[in-house]
Amino acid sequence: MTRITCRQLSPGVADLDSNLEMTTAAIRESVTAGARVVVVPELATSGYMFDSVEEARSVAIRPSHPVFADWAAAVAPADGVAIGGFAEIRDDGLIYNSAAVVDASGVLAVYRKVHLWDKEKLIFTPGSVEPPVVDTPAGRLGVLICFDLEFPEFPRSLALRGAELIVAPTNWPRESVPAGERVPEVTVAMATAYSNHVAIACCDRAGRERGQDWNEASCVIDQRGWVVATADESGVATADLDLNLSHDKSMGDLVDVFGDRRPELYEALTHATPLISRPTL
Amino acid sequence: MTRITCRQLSPGVADLDSNLEMTTAAIRESVTAGARVVVVPELATSGYMFDSVEEARSVAIRPSHPVFADWAAAVAPADGVAIGGFAEIRDDGLIYNSAAVVDASGVLAVYRKVHLWDKEKLIFTPGSVEPPVVDTPAGRLGVLICFDLEFPEFPRSLALRGAELIVAPTNWPRESVPAGERVPEVTVAMATAYSNHVAIACCDRAGRERGQDWNEASCVIDQRGWVVATADESGVATADLDLNLSHDKSMGDLVDVFGDRRPELYEALTHATPLISRPTL
Repeated sequence: MTRITCRQLSPGVADLDSNLEMTTAAIRESVTAGARVVVVPELATSGYMFDSVEEARSVAIRPSHPVFADWAAAVAPADGVAIGGFAEIRDDGLIYNSAAVVDASGVLAVYRKVHLWDKEKLIFTPGSVEPPVVDTPAGRLGVLICFDLEFPEFPRSLALRGAELIVAPTNWPRESVPAGERVPEVTVAMATAYSNHVAIACCDRAGRERGQDWNEASCVIDQRGWVVATADESGVATADLDLNLSHDKSMGDLVDVFGDRRPELYEALTHATPLISRPTL
Repeated sequence: MTRITCRQLSPGVADLDSNLEMTTAAIRESVTAGARVVVVPELATSGYMFDSVEEARSVAIRPSHPVFADWAAAVAPADGVAIGGFAEIRDDGLIYNSAAVVDASGVLAVYRKVHLWDKEKLIFTPGSVEPPVVDTPAGRLGVLICFDLEFPEFPRSLALRGAELIVAPTNWPRESVPAGERVPEVTVAMATAYSNHVAIACCDRAGRERGQDWNEASCVIDQRGWVVATADESGVATADLDLNLSHDKSMGDLVDVFGDRRPELYEALTHATPLISRPTL
């Protein structure tokens, strides 16, 4: 069994030093509590509600930044892995909404968010590379960031490439939903887990930032699509999962959710463009 | 607004005459009650729990069968459309798990289920053509059958081709789910509606057939992913929806769930084959 912990932190916008300290402490505490996979939110080192590109740039860091060595030291005792979001600046001067996958050896992979949400488009450059599947000491992880999950092509791709666990740092803006309903992002994650037989850990954030609240809907979902952990009052969502189960795509002797795919009939999914031949009234 | 009604019938296995009469009566009643789109279950004319291919063949019909003229007459007063499942026999002698889309003029389209579930594979030949999007007097409909919904490529394709409403005749075998949870098929349909901004009507079936119970989870889901109708005690799920809303893929000024797609990064979805480089322990 692998203990997976999401830490629903409350980063301060543009408060780099405090955020670095908070994320490292959260990862260290989680490992002490037995976690081997620790997920912190999207843009955990930078905050989210930037007033300008300049403000975001002021807290954008590189994968060589010492914080990732701190995360590596924090996961080392468990031979574990930490995944978290950061504002990344590259040599071209552009900034990205990125996530790092860090084990005891350092940064294993960086993913740059492809599907930017709303005003992120005014701040960040979208990634141009598909999300990675990373072999880590704690399992084969696929990485997405927030809105990426709502494009079924992306989690499907990760699962087809053998991901045992999809880790998704998120910042889900607060929504009102009908009584008794989950926020739609969690419904989407459950359906994704179910259709792909893959476990998913979504780490949302907490706290109000420049007037913005969040769903605070962190969850760990097993490979059959059931929510097995949500955030407790201290913002910790933790569950023990057998990640090997994500390799079993069968449902009885005659059903296999991957073997039953008909990729020769899926061309339209990749190439079709929206067809609106009837005007919207 | 368009009234959409799912009729959660209980067909008898291999009892063709009764099933034809029941489906036609249900469509007629629904139209009298104001429906313009009426959905009846998967294999509504034939039943489901066949003992043999021969038994299925004994009740397999062609799109030229008079029952579809009866359905056409039933929807004519509303200039409506009926969608329902039937066991189809073709000139090659093979039988298919099919669905017909019927308006007052007759059969507009036939779809043959591509993703056969479990023992269906021992009875039916899988379809080899992608599901259709059909312009009908009551809207542009995309057609799937049951397990097809769990392959996100298919509903995505229908939505990208402009479907305003996905209609899905189903036979969902009874599952036990954790307290307070929906059956996973409905969660998948909600996520599908949400991610694609498309309305979905799933018509499940009722009744015990050769020891098999069903989820009886028929639902109408709006284009934002909310369940707006489930089956009442008489097995009727009905809702009025503005299907034009399915053309609006925006979420605020800067988000468009289709415009934000990055198809150039989705190749893996179509072509990847499962990669299992780590043996399952």
